[in-house]
Amino acid sequence: MTNHRLITGLSNPTVKKLRALRIKKHRKASRKFLAEGLRILADAQAFGHSPEILLMSKDRDPHPILENLIKSVTSNGGEVLETSCAILSKITGKSNPQAVVGVYAELDTSIDKLRRSTADIWLVAHTMRDPGNLGTLLRTGDAVGAGGLILIDDCTDPFSFEAVRASMGAIFTQKIALTRWQEFYDWLRGGPGQLVGASLKNAVHYRDAKYESPCFILLGNESQGLPEKLESLSDIRVTMPMHGHADSLNAAVAGSILAYEVLAGLKKTR
Amino acid sequence: MTNHRLITGLSNPTVKKLRALRIKKHRKASRKFLAEGLRILADAQAFGHSPEILLMSKDRDPHPILENLIKSVTSNGGEVLETSCAILSKITGKSNPQAVVGVYAELDTSIDKLRRSTADIWLVAHTMRDPGNLGTLLRTGDAVGAGGLILIDDCTDPFSFEAVRASMGAIFTQKIALTRWQEFYDWLRGGPGQLVGASLKNAVHYRDAKYESPCFILLGNESQGLPEKLESLSDIRVTMPMHGHADSLNAAVAGSILAYEVLAGLKKTR
Repeated sequence: MTNHRLITGLSNPTVKKLRALRIKKHRKASRKFLAEGLRILADAQAFGHSPEILLMSKDRDPHPILENLIKSVTSNGGEVLETSCAILSKITGKSNPQAVVGVYAELDTSIDKLRRSTADIWLVAHTMRDPGNLGTLLRTGDAVGAGGLILIDDCTDPFSFEAVRASMGAIFTQKIALTRWQEFYDWLRGGPGQLVGASLKNAVHYRDAKYESPCFILLGNESQGLPEKLESLSDIRVTMPMHGHADSLNAAVAGSILAYEVLAGLKKTR
Repeated sequence: MTNHRLITGLSNPTVKKLRALRIKKHRKASRKFLAEGLRILADAQAFGHSPEILLMSKDRDPHPILENLIKSVTSNGGEVLETSCAILSKITGKSNPQAVVGVYAELDTSIDKLRRSTADIWLVAHTMRDPGNLGTLLRTGDAVGAGGLILIDDCTDPFSFEAVRASMGAIFTQKIALTRWQEFYDWLRGGPGQLVGASLKNAVHYRDAKYESPCFILLGNESQGLPEKLESLSDIRVTMPMHGHADSLNAAVAGSILAYEVLAGLKKTR
């Protein structure tokens, strides 16, 4: 096992810098974010995302995936650091000695970088507030083979520790765009694309709608749903039956049910 | 507006008691739990769950739902207390002056109380760890008209603040049973019921399976999925296609997609 620079003490500047990345203003100032978990970091590496810093426990057991990751990070010019389990768990919130954390440069989030023809499904969220929901949607997007997640107006930061964690690595495999409604709408109408609004009101039953590729599934805010204007600009509005007392589903759940329905619907029409 | 007993100061015993209910051992010792949110408390009341204590802001605006709730709680022998916005936000984590919080007696969670014929769908979770996932499953259960959620072996506490919050009131409208696998399995086989295991392995495509009422959707732990034994005891095992890099969905998402599929499947066969 190679020896790497050892970081000790919570007041070490590198530790401070890493912990600061849990706070949005520090992420935005440095344009970096954190991801943790061996499997996730290995997936990121496979997708061409090499961390600037890889931090791991000095008490780790040898692990082939980790050894490969270390080599790959080093050859990409990244810094590999070791620290105590205690400090690592202060940063990641996990006490697993296999814990690893990486510091990544923020990804390009301009909508112009999206190529709509690369996927049949795209997820679009309007003012989504909950980082867990956002990350979960990314994870579902990966599962249905979506192209990415387009975040409209003031959504929660997709690079927060919570969102990255909930995405289970999909932050690196799905494209992410941050944009405003008008910019998105102009971009959308500049090419083929069906805009499907997830509605709480009277709309087409989500299993009776005819979905077309590329399909853009538009989801509203957790408490307000979609604004009228966005619903009216959708090509179709779909709704899920509600047989109980509540009038809505969790936003990530609703988006995921729709995404799997669109996936099935598009397969049938081929 | 009637005057109610005013609670001031964080060291007030009632405030201490309420805050303690955020911690599991205090909930278990007192067999009580907290729920918050006007809409949720009103729903609970409509379902016959009246809080022992209703705590609200002294700076609240008059609100017909709240006034009805106050009357109803009082006539059920509950205590209605007022406090400052600051204290209420210490307890609920919300700064909304319309914030309300209720203290409820723990609900009956014995499996013998479930009547399987009352619903077509029942959700069953094995060693589910995340309170947000548990609450979200309850919320989806309500939406599909499920009878309730059966929690097998060591699941996270359904009465935690986080689970109750994520359930959006479904904690009061869905039945909840806490049991062990063998007890559940004996109960299940004592009557009609199809056990559908959500599998990560090669199994029937979830849209090709024939679902039967009452259908028990069995979900595994967030990181391990279902143990072999539970899969093999299921009547059918179903799986969702994964077109990306991850090998699983968020547990609440997977359960919700299955629940909506079963709902649609059962409708078709009628």
